[in-house]
Amino acid sequence: MEMVYGKHSVRAVFLRRPQDVRRVILGGKREYHSEVIETARRVGIEPELVAWPEFRRETGLTDDDKHQGECVFTSRRRVYGEHDLDRISDGRLVIALDQISDPQNLGAVLRAAAFFGADAVLLLKNRSAEMTPKVARIAVGGAEFVDVFRVTNLARSLDILREYGYWVYGLDERGEHTLRETEFDSKAVLVVGAEGQGLRQRTRTKCDALVRIPGGREGVESLNAAVATAIALAEIAGAAGSEERAGASRSADSVGGEAARR
Amino acid sequence: MEMVYGKHSVRAVFLRRPQDVRRVILGGKREYHSEVIETARRVGIEPELVAWPEFRRETGLTDDDKHQGECVFTSRRRVYGEHDLDRISDGRLVIALDQISDPQNLGAVLRAAAFFGADAVLLLKNRSAEMTPKVARIAVGGAEFVDVFRVTNLARSLDILREYGYWVYGLDERGEHTLRETEFDSKAVLVVGAEGQGLRQRTRTKCDALVRIPGGREGVESLNAAVATAIALAEIAGAAGSEERAGASRSADSVGGEAARR
Repeated sequence: MEMVYGKHSVRAVFLRRPQDVRRVILGGKREYHSEVIETARRVGIEPELVAWPEFRRETGLTDDDKHQGECVFTSRRRVYGEHDLDRISDGRLVIALDQISDPQNLGAVLRAAAFFGADAVLLLKNRSAEMTPKVARIAVGGAEFVDVFRVTNLARSLDILREYGYWVYGLDERGEHTLRETEFDSKAVLVVGAEGQGLRQRTRTKCDALVRIPGGREGVESLNAAVATAIALAEIAGAAGSEERAGASRSADSVGGEAARR
Repeated sequence: MEMVYGKHSVRAVFLRRPQDVRRVILGGKREYHSEVIETARRVGIEPELVAWPEFRRETGLTDDDKHQGECVFTSRRRVYGEHDLDRISDGRLVIALDQISDPQNLGAVLRAAAFFGADAVLLLKNRSAEMTPKVARIAVGGAEFVDVFRVTNLARSLDILREYGYWVYGLDERGEHTLRETEFDSKAVLVVGAEGQGLRQRTRTKCDALVRIPGGREGVESLNAAVATAIALAEIAGAAGSEERAGASRSADSVGGEAARR
């Protein structure tokens, strides 16, 4: 069993995997929860409306957890592995996190990934933040809309994704081109390095291109890793949007890109 | 006196206002702090190298505070008011936060603001997060490079900035145009609303244009306020960069914009 809490995250669970929900625990006034009560009943679950002390006891949450009085217990969230990568062979946008260790950053990445329609986030086993209830809470629902993969060897996973036709872009301050100057392929993997350290050497050699976010000054040389990821996602998604508006076919571009690479 | 802690924030203080530093307290191994020891001595201050229990006692910090064993006490950081707005009459990029209450978000905004070269951040008195040492820590040095103004009446401050020639852009999901479609004036104010609520009605009427970040889906309708701010700053700064590269004069554009508005 796994816990999901916070109004938005609970709503997202009911949108994406209502069949997984086992228990719904609500604290505080009934009026505040009318939407989730109705949603839960529609899938045949009667929410437990409890007083705050019982809410805290049943969920183990404290007032610092920003739970908004809503908590559900679900069957375990599916986390995929390297052997499942064919799930995203038809995908268009994948994020690979090279050692992101801060739960706050992982949650923020998942939220932005879901907002910009990314298909998946790849995490490095053993060296990344875990997919905890807290991470899901920080993702404000985003964790339900993006497949999460934990892989042992990021370089090998990137090779597999390349075989599926993805181009691999590393976000790195040493990049030759800025985000804006880069024409992203219609199938893109965005690789983001650890907080404060950037991409590891071995990961960098696996990238088709290194791209950078222009800016910075002595004293503030870098952006937060999740913020940098979101900026890159906005750029990739925004470029796709304007090409569509301009009537240019992204798939045509991508055929050209593929030809150039192979 | 005011406390500043964390390696990057301490370094930024020495870069921007070394004359303000009164005490430097360092915990842990001397080797780890060789850079800051040298920097402090150069401005005539002998750092106090102490054991961890004393470090915690003298600073009041705990291990959760990500202090990295570096803490300085400085004279109070200057926070400006409405009557000081003429300081930024010649500025180019200002951020106005309409009720951002989360310290994490304020810190993240300050870091991105400094990275993208913004001149100032305006906060609403009484309804925004305070400029605490924790906020400065989250800004990872960014708080030293951006003037912070606390104003009682945001609408009136926006009017003053308009008189200085700024155009006011409100970030709002109801915006008619996307960031990408918008040609930003060379003097821009970016107004960002409260977490989860967006711009207040009165603030919205003070904007010359409302712009939105395209994306979102049922279940993940919005981005974190600091992430959205950073994306907008990247777009404004990136557009400026590419116009300069393309040889187009931004000030010429802006003269056209001014004429159209007046």
